[in-house]
Amino acid sequence: MGETTNPGLEGVIVAETELSDVDGEAGELIIGGYPLEELAANASYEESVFLLLEGRLPTADELEAFRADLAARRRITEEVQQVLRRAAEDGAPAMDALRMGVAAASLGDDRDEPEATSGIDPEPRDDAMRLVAVVPTIVATYWRYRRDEEPLEPRPDLSHAANYLYLLTGEEPTPADVRGLETYLNTVIEHGVNASTFTARTVVSTESDLISAITAAVGALKGPLHGGAPGPVLEMLREVHEEGDPEGYVRAKLEAGERLMGFGHRVYRVRDPRAAVLSNGAERLYAQSADADFFETVQAFESVAVDALAEHKPDRRLETNVEFYTAALLDGVGVPRELFTPTFAVSRVGGWSAHCLEQLEDNRLVRPVSRYAGETDRTWTPVGER
Amino acid sequence: MGETTNPGLEGVIVAETELSDVDGEAGELIIGGYPLEELAANASYEESVFLLLEGRLPTADELEAFRADLAARRRITEEVQQVLRRAAEDGAPAMDALRMGVAAASLGDDRDEPEATSGIDPEPRDDAMRLVAVVPTIVATYWRYRRDEEPLEPRPDLSHAANYLYLLTGEEPTPADVRGLETYLNTVIEHGVNASTFTARTVVSTESDLISAITAAVGALKGPLHGGAPGPVLEMLREVHEEGDPEGYVRAKLEAGERLMGFGHRVYRVRDPRAAVLSNGAERLYAQSADADFFETVQAFESVAVDALAEHKPDRRLETNVEFYTAALLDGVGVPRELFTPTFAVSRVGGWSAHCLEQLEDNRLVRPVSRYAGETDRTWTPVGER
Repeated sequence: MGETTNPGLEGVIVAETELSDVDGEAGELIIGGYPLEELAANASYEESVFLLLEGRLPTADELEAFRADLAARRRITEEVQQVLRRAAEDGAPAMDALRMGVAAASLGDDRDEPEATSGIDPEPRDDAMRLVAVVPTIVATYWRYRRDEEPLEPRPDLSHAANYLYLLTGEEPTPADVRGLETYLNTVIEHGVNASTFTARTVVSTESDLISAITAAVGALKGPLHGGAPGPVLEMLREVHEEGDPEGYVRAKLEAGERLMGFGHRVYRVRDPRAAVLSNGAERLYAQSADADFFETVQAFESVAVDALAEHKPDRRLETNVEFYTAALLDGVGVPRELFTPTFAVSRVGGWSAHCLEQLEDNRLVRPVSRYAGETDRTWTPVGER
Repeated sequence: MGETTNPGLEGVIVAETELSDVDGEAGELIIGGYPLEELAANASYEESVFLLLEGRLPTADELEAFRADLAARRRITEEVQQVLRRAAEDGAPAMDALRMGVAAASLGDDRDEPEATSGIDPEPRDDAMRLVAVVPTIVATYWRYRRDEEPLEPRPDLSHAANYLYLLTGEEPTPADVRGLETYLNTVIEHGVNASTFTARTVVSTESDLISAITAAVGALKGPLHGGAPGPVLEMLREVHEEGDPEGYVRAKLEAGERLMGFGHRVYRVRDPRAAVLSNGAERLYAQSADADFFETVQAFESVAVDALAEHKPDRRLETNVEFYTAALLDGVGVPRELFTPTFAVSRVGGWSAHCLEQLEDNRLVRPVSRYAGETDRTWTPVGER
């Protein structure tokens, strides 16, 4: 009876994983054995997904086959298109549309028996491939309808990242934009048992399927306490850039007792290692862009904000988080701000899927307990006597 | 480092709740302050939902308004119908169709500002009402398409349970069938923080919405380790009834080292209290039915099986679980066996929704930790050199 309730599951170890190591004190992140810094700027997104699913990087032949396999699975059914059209017409949020599309991603399933490429039961792995392939199509189809444009056919000749940008814009992206997006996708693909990943693992712990698990994870990522608010961060940065006075902006916010978006994280006590990687990626991107002065503002703002936060809240350690440079980088490659959180899902579906497969390899049904704090021994009264 | 991994979250208290108290040692279940036995056979399903959402039973006027409110929300959009039609044509499992339908339940949202009937933020409560109302429509629409029949319009003049049976069959159900179904719906409406309920609470812990949370819960309930397999239990019971030798069936199974379906539960060490309530409900139903001798077989089978299990596995305490009499009762009221698990969801959506509202009242983001067991410090090798 003296046991404490732990609603946030702080410190509870729910899984052993080979997928990532989040060291919040040191500010270090390992993904599939590689320090984030090694992986993010070098790998294609397809290589990162292969790494998480197989535990190692692919050979050239394996990578080619893996790319072709993913590219062949990008289409969605007519019924899902109609749902996305209706969601766009209703003005539903993009994450609601993504939830609807992923939930119905098993429609039109005419898959052949997949080749067993590992010890994993072939069907969940097949679902993982389908899910990774189809999330960009769902997001882009919704977005085209939102803009009163017809959705485009996926282009199997383009890489995963390039095809996503093509489906959004109708134009073949530049190599710099593709590299920028891939750096983002690799950076946020996997991050321990956060709320959405843990949700996915809990769903498959019942021996349910990956479509159900990833649908659930999308719903969890939708929540601002998890998926965050990189869209509003961008609006803030654009406002600061127009006003031209980062220091004045930060001072006014802190003196008004308001929160500064883009700083602080539940796990990291130092600068989020993903912020550095995204900052480097954005720096490379903006160096070639007409918008280079915007990125100078972003960097100046970070420096001013970190100093001011250290002074105003010395015991909080509010360092730059992943949302801050997500906003700058995704804006730079041409992803609209309404799609920042769905684009997070475009990446994280790789990590979610790998966690589901890992959970199924050594499964235990998740079944915590609650403490009853309600009435007892009420007796029934018919409705006429109440 | 010496801390143990607890993947099943055994014994971890994740919530204080006023919704239900599951005493697995004593075999007692309290729902909203009422012993299950008080609630199940007396309440309408609408009264049980009101009880969970408001913490007390409604007055006559409140009940009338609540019924009308739910009944007015039963329709689904054309786009969702088309998805369900396609799912039926594809031969997708009923729980997959339910996941798709619930995920898109926010489409066509033209709600007025709901009246605030409690301290709860009105929008999640509105979602709860919509979800409870729409789950039977989704299940029945899928089922009609599966049988090559057009779906029926919901009947606002019928109670929640009666309308569900009407939508499945096209006929107004008898009062005995409605009472039988309501006894089932009340019995399984709420049961602590099981895997699906905990999934729903985890999703809203991110401040996501109830549509996302209940979609996730449906995915968790789909898993056979949670939603179970009452359909196969029914097939077993029908087979035993035709063969006419319960004792021989049980002996053959146990001697072959096989599991007996319908017995044993992760939490209950004695007879699941829900089994008794469902057994009484089924007994009343079958007493008026041409199929009364089937229920005699069911009772005889339980008695033989419990004795045999106690003898063969004296340390396991394998008692009758909720699936056993679910099969008999739902078959008796005319629910097809393919819809047993979706009908579980028709009921449990009430408990899930109430848990979500409870979570939001005093929220904490769920964020457990993992232990890294993978490689460290790998260095990048370009694909041509692998």
